[in-house]
Amino acid sequence: EEILVNNKEELSKALKEVQPGQVILLKNGTWTDVEIKLKGKGTEENKIVLKAETPGKVFLEGQSYLRISGSYIVVSDLVFRNGYTPTSSVISFRTSSKELAYNCRVTNCVVEDYSNSERYDSDKWVEIFGKNNSFDHNALVGKRNKGVTLAVRLNSKESLENNHVIAYNYFGGRQNLGSNGGETLRIGTSHYSRSNSNTTVKNNYFEACDGELEIVSNKSCGNTYQNNVFDECKGTLTLRHGERTLVEGNYFLGNRKHNTGGIRVINEYQTVRNNYLSGLTGYRFRGALVVMNGIYNSPINRYNQVIGAKISNNLLIDSDHVQLCAGSDKERSATPIESTMKNNLFFTATNPNLFTVYDNIEGIDFENNYVNNGENTPVEEGFTFVDYQLEENEFGLRVPKKKLLKKIGFKGDVKLPVTKEEVGPSYYKKEIKEVTFNTGKVIKVAAGDDTLIDAAKKSEAGDILELEKGGVYGLSKILFVNHPITIRGAEGEKPVIKSEKAVFFKIENGGSLKLNHLVIDGADSPDQSGNCVVSTSKYSMNENYKFITLDCDIKQLNINHTFNFLKIYASTMADSILIENSTFTEVTGAILSLDKEIEDLGMYNAEYVIVKNSKFTKIGDTIADVYRGGTDESTFGPNVAITKCDFTDVGNSKRNKDHSSLAFHGVQNLQVADCNWKDSAPVKLFLTNGEPISNLKNCVFDNTEQIQSNNNSYTTKNIQVIN
Amino acid sequence: EEILVNNKEELSKALKEVQPGQVILLKNGTWTDVEIKLKGKGTEENKIVLKAETPGKVFLEGQSYLRISGSYIVVSDLVFRNGYTPTSSVISFRTSSKELAYNCRVTNCVVEDYSNSERYDSDKWVEIFGKNNSFDHNALVGKRNKGVTLAVRLNSKESLENNHVIAYNYFGGRQNLGSNGGETLRIGTSHYSRSNSNTTVKNNYFEACDGELEIVSNKSCGNTYQNNVFDECKGTLTLRHGERTLVEGNYFLGNRKHNTGGIRVINEYQTVRNNYLSGLTGYRFRGALVVMNGIYNSPINRYNQVIGAKISNNLLIDSDHVQLCAGSDKERSATPIESTMKNNLFFTATNPNLFTVYDNIEGIDFENNYVNNGENTPVEEGFTFVDYQLEENEFGLRVPKKKLLKKIGFKGDVKLPVTKEEVGPSYYKKEIKEVTFNTGKVIKVAAGDDTLIDAAKKSEAGDILELEKGGVYGLSKILFVNHPITIRGAEGEKPVIKSEKAVFFKIENGGSLKLNHLVIDGADSPDQSGNCVVSTSKYSMNENYKFITLDCDIKQLNINHTFNFLKIYASTMADSILIENSTFTEVTGAILSLDKEIEDLGMYNAEYVIVKNSKFTKIGDTIADVYRGGTDESTFGPNVAITKCDFTDVGNSKRNKDHSSLAFHGVQNLQVADCNWKDSAPVKLFLTNGEPISNLKNCVFDNTEQIQSNNNSYTTKNIQVIN
Ligand SMILES: [Ca+2]
Ligand SMILES: [Ca+2]
Repeated sequence: EEILVNNKEELSKALKEVQPGQVILLKNGTWTDVEIKLKGKGTEENKIVLKAETPGKVFLEGQSYLRISGSYIVVSDLVFRNGYTPTSSVISFRTSSKELAYNCRVTNCVVEDYSNSERYDSDKWVEIFGKNNSFDHNALVGKRNKGVTLAVRLNSKESLENNHVIAYNYFGGRQNLGSNGGETLRIGTSHYSRSNSNTTVKNNYFEACDGELEIVSNKSCGNTYQNNVFDECKGTLTLRHGERTLVEGNYFLGNRKHNTGGIRVINEYQTVRNNYLSGLTGYRFRGALVVMNGIYNSPINRYNQVIGAKISNNLLIDSDHVQLCAGSDKERSATPIESTMKNNLFFTATNPNLFTVYDNIEGIDFENNYVNNGENTPVEEGFTFVDYQLEENEFGLRVPKKKLLKKIGFKGDVKLPVTKEEVGPSYYKKEIKEVTFNTGKVIKVAAGDDTLIDAAKKSEAGDILELEKGGVYGLSKILFVNHPITIRGAEGEKPVIKSEKAVFFKIENGGSLKLNHLVIDGADSPDQSGNCVVSTSKYSMNENYKFITLDCDIKQLNINHTFNFLKIYASTMADSILIENSTFTEVTGAILSLDKEIEDLGMYNAEYVIVKNSKFTKIGDTIADVYRGGTDESTFGPNVAITKCDFTDVGNSKRNKDHSSLAFHGVQNLQVADCNWKDSAPVKLFLTNGEPISNLKNCVFDNTEQIQSNNNSYTTKNIQVIN
Repeated sequence: EEILVNNKEELSKALKEVQPGQVILLKNGTWTDVEIKLKGKGTEENKIVLKAETPGKVFLEGQSYLRISGSYIVVSDLVFRNGYTPTSSVISFRTSSKELAYNCRVTNCVVEDYSNSERYDSDKWVEIFGKNNSFDHNALVGKRNKGVTLAVRLNSKESLENNHVIAYNYFGGRQNLGSNGGETLRIGTSHYSRSNSNTTVKNNYFEACDGELEIVSNKSCGNTYQNNVFDECKGTLTLRHGERTLVEGNYFLGNRKHNTGGIRVINEYQTVRNNYLSGLTGYRFRGALVVMNGIYNSPINRYNQVIGAKISNNLLIDSDHVQLCAGSDKERSATPIESTMKNNLFFTATNPNLFTVYDNIEGIDFENNYVNNGENTPVEEGFTFVDYQLEENEFGLRVPKKKLLKKIGFKGDVKLPVTKEEVGPSYYKKEIKEVTFNTGKVIKVAAGDDTLIDAAKKSEAGDILELEKGGVYGLSKILFVNHPITIRGAEGEKPVIKSEKAVFFKIENGGSLKLNHLVIDGADSPDQSGNCVVSTSKYSMNENYKFITLDCDIKQLNINHTFNFLKIYASTMADSILIENSTFTEVTGAILSLDKEIEDLGMYNAEYVIVKNSKFTKIGDTIADVYRGGTDESTFGPNVAITKCDFTDVGNSKRNKDHSSLAFHGVQNLQVADCNWKDSAPVKLFLTNGEPISNLKNCVFDNTEQIQSNNNSYTTKNIQVIN
């Protein structure tokens, strides 16, 4: 029996009276703020079905969400977009803590960009409770706030040994969150991690799932990950808790993208076989293959020792890091035991020192593995050296010779087990969108008061606003940046921008800003403290932004104290901040204060911070203050490079509380090179966990205090001190 | 010639072509985002006029603003509301930094609640530049963001000796800002403060202008404040910079409201005469009459010495504090000289120790002043003791006997020089709005999932949501508090509220919350750090809020770390936070963390914090952490009282970084009394400038560290330590 419902009232009535064998059809169109709670006892023969009149033509928007409980319910063909859930998930396989779903299925649905505007308000898009449920052929694309995209929940015994199947789904485009909580798929939590989940994850396609270190966080026992593709995902399939999980036939394609990883092994009796891992650049916990140290008698939320791991028949191609006994430290001192690495092939032309061994690896039995000539090996026995020879096969993948494949016993063809076309709903176009600078038109802007504001209002994403040679541009209002935009001076004398407001440019959610060949002058700014040239929104931004300053002269930011160049707010995240070929003169505040996530939960404000070939003179506060607190190891950055810069009279304001010219706390990768300091405050380092890389070289400190650090795990080369 | 314009295009055209003698009429109705720049050279005979078709029927909303420059322009009858200016002011007497207004007038206009939603984004409502301008019969009501309401600007020599007249305006309802920058009227800034402004401010009515310490901040020379009324304003008319200003015939009516003040004298040759000051309770810089110490060779932005002040013929009635040599410290050591206090009457039944003398007052000549018997005097000579006798006169004001009035030479009747009816536009109703708790209806809410959410959505300001005796109320969504609302349990067993979300109740802008006779249980809260029971908006709130917890039991806030009771965000301000007759048990985070304004600019998060008769057991973090940083002296609070409380195992979480059970930084008035500590972290005080009052008495510290403080300017009485 089909019941077509036209509005919320009819839906509500239909849901209340629903009977086995009924099919509720949602009328095509947009439904706003619909709260669907579907409870029912269908049977295998007489299922309860909720679906769209036409697949993909029903849009659930605003504060809509779906909860199902009972048995044999099928929900299909719905699209969630333009909004976010007010509850803890968009699609939940329960209607209350006691009413769970059994033998239910959600299929052919889409959740797209349905993210809470509060970046760090946590929710999940899908939560699977109960038993024997299926989530298949769906697309989950563009989650941008905190919280796992899809979670299998084991928070009561009704949800254990669940035999759920997660198959043929498309997981697309999860941006770097800059915090723990950006997992795409999680099964279990530490609490029930020593119980069986018995969930199968197969034939799914993960693309650009860059949320955090864990693309997949396996936190229970007895799960199977089979024939999935991980296409340019930053992170790893992590066997974080629980034992006896099988990872088989999965394809990891890094394409040399930064921080792409493979499989990370922790806990007992894991099996990792017949996987293909290629072009993965990730280091440390993001390595192509990582086997960790554990903790003796580990608490349930820490790291169990690796016991009895079987890692075999895998192909590692052109990847950079295999990490053994990773994370070894005082606490994590239990090295892997009773484990084997057998019949694997490790071919790489990118890093001859593929293997890093952090502790005793006697507990791993190496046998019949193949490496290419010139590569290192963790031990002498168990590795055969052969020539590095790879070719693209008929399926477009780089492979060794057939003979070698045979020698390591790789099963089947080297071929993606599933394609993008085969996953998700057929009505949904699976693509990763990214709008960037300079993809639009050039708009010429005449000099004058507020002409730039008016032009910016009319601009579209990717446009370039071109200012007149030597023109003067006054701003009586804030220029809001709502999409990627370039403001650039025409060739010749740089145009000058002045503002009467506390902020020249404000980057709103979705915005990115490039300043090119300009003079920014603070002479008309209001006589009050705390002005800035660029700020982020004060509100949460759930889209990462970019901010680039090229060939600009910034001056006279000094009408009052604490006049900053960039002023950011919490709950914002820059993918990248770049300053190049620019000068900064007479600034009472800081240039880049990236230290607003102070709760020490591992959050931070910028992934890449690059400052090069620039001069800083008479700057009151810090040039770059980059902070990532806490001890969380789920994230990649911040990454900072400061090169070829001159600092003169920098950091000497009495309001520069930590009295630094550069200050880095918890930065994961720091490169400072070819810089000169004169009459300036010192460089301050605070190195935290995560084995950060911190290198300083070719620096001259003239009448400037020495580098200060909480410990000496940083390297210096050619540092000159003049007094 | 009258030109009626119907829309923005016609207005724009009319403005472009405007000629002397023309009258531009804005058609009645709502105009959104209108940017009016009126430039023109009118003459005394042929003025240029811009006005409403009907006074008070033209509403400028959204991002509208007005700028005028030239000469003999009159703007009248307009109402700005529902929005805020995108520029630095709503009404500006210039169109650019070089184009100022001369002989112009703005009259009969209203600016109401036209406040930037960003509390600390600064703008002004009116800026007067140029010369010989008039601002009269206007109403400026309800400014809630930072920035002076009306400023006379002296930032170039064209605006000096300006002879502006500000008269018959209504300045109404400016809430406590909690920061410097809440002045209602300012004339000049420190930079030009040694030049003549020669502005007259007369016959204005100030009501409830509570923004900050300075209702009026006089920062230039030669001004006149005459016949103004200050009705229940917290703060003072402050002669902050500049000399030779006359303060005459003004009426300050405190009605015993907290922190109401009178006149504060700084700098040279000020005259304060024939003023009436009554019922003023303010202390220190908010005193009824304050004469400050200065600094020898003061920098222009600090405090000039008082020289040649003439304070005479004033009536001080039933006020609490006259402060002489106020602010005396190492820096402010220049005592008043060549000054007289003559023919004044000081009658008070409220504080017999009316006078406080902080330094040498030999430089003040006291003559023929009258005090009542029993009162103190600053010196022996120059004061005559008479009986305290006051009566209400025919104008409703409390006065001494006629004979005494004559003796001190008080001129004229004791009578308000202007009434509320005489100021502002006649079409505008002048009233102070305040919505509070329990002014609405009682809504009974049945127990169940989300019934409370649904009831709250339908509620109106002042309503009471009454929950069933012993009922259980589940929340799957956040309950948003958008107006003052009470949630209260019916008599008998307290109902229980649980939530699946990270926040139970979120107070949005305009909201206030009272919890009464409830159990709040964290058992269903998500397993993540940082949950809370109540939070403010994460966004700026430009309306102050109240949060009251009465007779509640809060428990099991412990599913994960840092589970707080109240979690606030920056740019929010509580008028008052009260906890009474409640218990708190097993909380991993803090109870009241009021420490989010960390920029040390004198901002803070709550004016009154009162905790009484409550029990706190197993609380990980601080019970109350109240912070006001910086050295700014423009504000009143925070005020904190903690009485009759028990603290057991409080503050011992390793995440309680400062390891305190109570932590007060820069609190201005602290009372801790009749409390017991057991196995808890210590009380920490950080006393800053502003001569804070900090008293602790009748406290028992059992197995708890001693009080810690940065200095010993606090008092203790009957403190018991048990080990
Ligand atoms: Ca994680
Ligand atoms: Ca002030």
